[in-house]
Amino acid sequence: MLQIPSNYKVLFLQGGATQHFAQIPMNFARRGQGADYLVTGHWGEKALKEATPLVQARIAASGAAGNYTAIPARADWRLDPDAAYLHYTPNETIHGVEFHTIPEVGDVPLVADLSSTILSRPLDVSRFGIIYAGAQKNIGAAGLVVMIVREDLLARCPRDIPKIFNYAEHAANESMLNTPNTFGWYLAGLVFKWLLAQGGLAAMAERNRAKAELLYGYIDASGFYRNPVEPSARSWMNVPFTLPREELDAPFLKEAEAAGLMALKGHRAVGGMRASIYNAMPLEGVQALVDFMRDFARRHG
Amino acid sequence: MLQIPSNYKVLFLQGGATQHFAQIPMNFARRGQGADYLVTGHWGEKALKEATPLVQARIAASGAAGNYTAIPARADWRLDPDAAYLHYTPNETIHGVEFHTIPEVGDVPLVADLSSTILSRPLDVSRFGIIYAGAQKNIGAAGLVVMIVREDLLARCPRDIPKIFNYAEHAANESMLNTPNTFGWYLAGLVFKWLLAQGGLAAMAERNRAKAELLYGYIDASGFYRNPVEPSARSWMNVPFTLPREELDAPFLKEAEAAGLMALKGHRAVGGMRASIYNAMPLEGVQALVDFMRDFARRHG
Repeated sequence: MLQIPSNYKVLFLQGGATQHFAQIPMNFARRGQGADYLVTGHWGEKALKEATPLVQARIAASGAAGNYTAIPARADWRLDPDAAYLHYTPNETIHGVEFHTIPEVGDVPLVADLSSTILSRPLDVSRFGIIYAGAQKNIGAAGLVVMIVREDLLARCPRDIPKIFNYAEHAANESMLNTPNTFGWYLAGLVFKWLLAQGGLAAMAERNRAKAELLYGYIDASGFYRNPVEPSARSWMNVPFTLPREELDAPFLKEAEAAGLMALKGHRAVGGMRASIYNAMPLEGVQALVDFMRDFARRHG
Repeated sequence: MLQIPSNYKVLFLQGGATQHFAQIPMNFARRGQGADYLVTGHWGEKALKEATPLVQARIAASGAAGNYTAIPARADWRLDPDAAYLHYTPNETIHGVEFHTIPEVGDVPLVADLSSTILSRPLDVSRFGIIYAGAQKNIGAAGLVVMIVREDLLARCPRDIPKIFNYAEHAANESMLNTPNTFGWYLAGLVFKWLLAQGGLAAMAERNRAKAELLYGYIDASGFYRNPVEPSARSWMNVPFTLPREELDAPFLKEAEAAGLMALKGHRAVGGMRASIYNAMPLEGVQALVDFMRDFARRHG
């Protein structure tokens, strides 16, 4: 499972990741200090926006100009060495853009919203200052956030904010400063046991890689479907794709549902389709999708 | 069920009531404005403390001098007519002190942390500006807060705070500004249906009154157990009581557990025992407790 270095603390917090878009600057930036944001999609934009009332949030790099189909080249990032932290979103669920390596950013603590990739493969926690993740993708049910924080950073949490917003208080109280999301925490424990029974994160990585390769491989070879993301930045978890003509979207979705393939409609920000293939989706599910897509393309090609 | 006037909005929010100790001043008080707090126990103290970094929080009345065994006389409350709101805790779970009528406070919006009494009896929502309640007593599972807010107050929510903290944003998005606590919300729906099947809030009130009368009646008549709270302020939901000698606490708890009567240990702030008899506790459960207490008193009296 996830190796947690001894100088890190794991917190089980109520609520969703969005709340931490605001709480992270509140806790880890001094008043007036700047913080850097890498924006590679919808969620990075949102994290930046929620932080804006609380910190001098600065875009270190953005993929917006290319409609979030690639990660900006490392050489073009403008990093502030005095930033309180550098925030990024390793996987963007709507745009299907993912960092496949952890960026090198020097001494500035790296803060990652890992909501949609945590536990999908092994992870070197020691490279991060703060990892946080909403539970509803690979951990369990909505209403719980898992945070992994380097303990020295907790010294930054200011005393003049309400305790309930203060991560150092949550850490000192072992995530039981207030009544936690008991059911959500319990469910997370069951998922962790399930992951171990599957062979742990290395086994999940193999499975997730195979799922992604199968789906992208078919899309690229199809001559019918299209994924717009730069291959090196393609997400293992969320695969957006378009059909050759927009009027095919409705019949595709209808027939897919009839075949038991649900929730394939893409986010309105990008249109088309999106297959979310988190840990809970087996290879057989992706194979069923590919079989359906192939049949649909044959009939409408 | 609870009658919601048409000028009120019901929100289903992630997290616990404690978070709203901080968010309520953030949303409903202007910078520098004062807010009044009636403090009648542990939770009122905590609400005041969490609000302090965000508003000029002022104690309008406190039961601290009497160890929170009564509600301060109405004549002694010092209410500020310019306060942003008056906050109080209709039921204090640790001290077992409850308001059995809704205070008259003029035009200042009344804000109530109803976590531990909501749905225990009918309630005149129109008397309140804001009602909020953590779900884990009478609504469902921890991790969800139900808020009932008079819509005109939402105009106070400032635009310069993160959206995720802004109640007007949650209201405008029908409590789906972010992924809600889906399981908790679903479970609340099941509890609402169960309440209707029980005969609704009027039936619950009769049942809860009968449970409380049975337990307080026995305690007062026992000459062995003692509840320190002024009878007119005794809680229907939480009944703290002490035994005549502290050394009886451990055997009482041990024998009670053996008899299937769990979680009777009082909070460390008041010591002794505490019977929490929320909606989910049937009259038969209270009768079993009284039978056990009578037998224990006979053997140790």
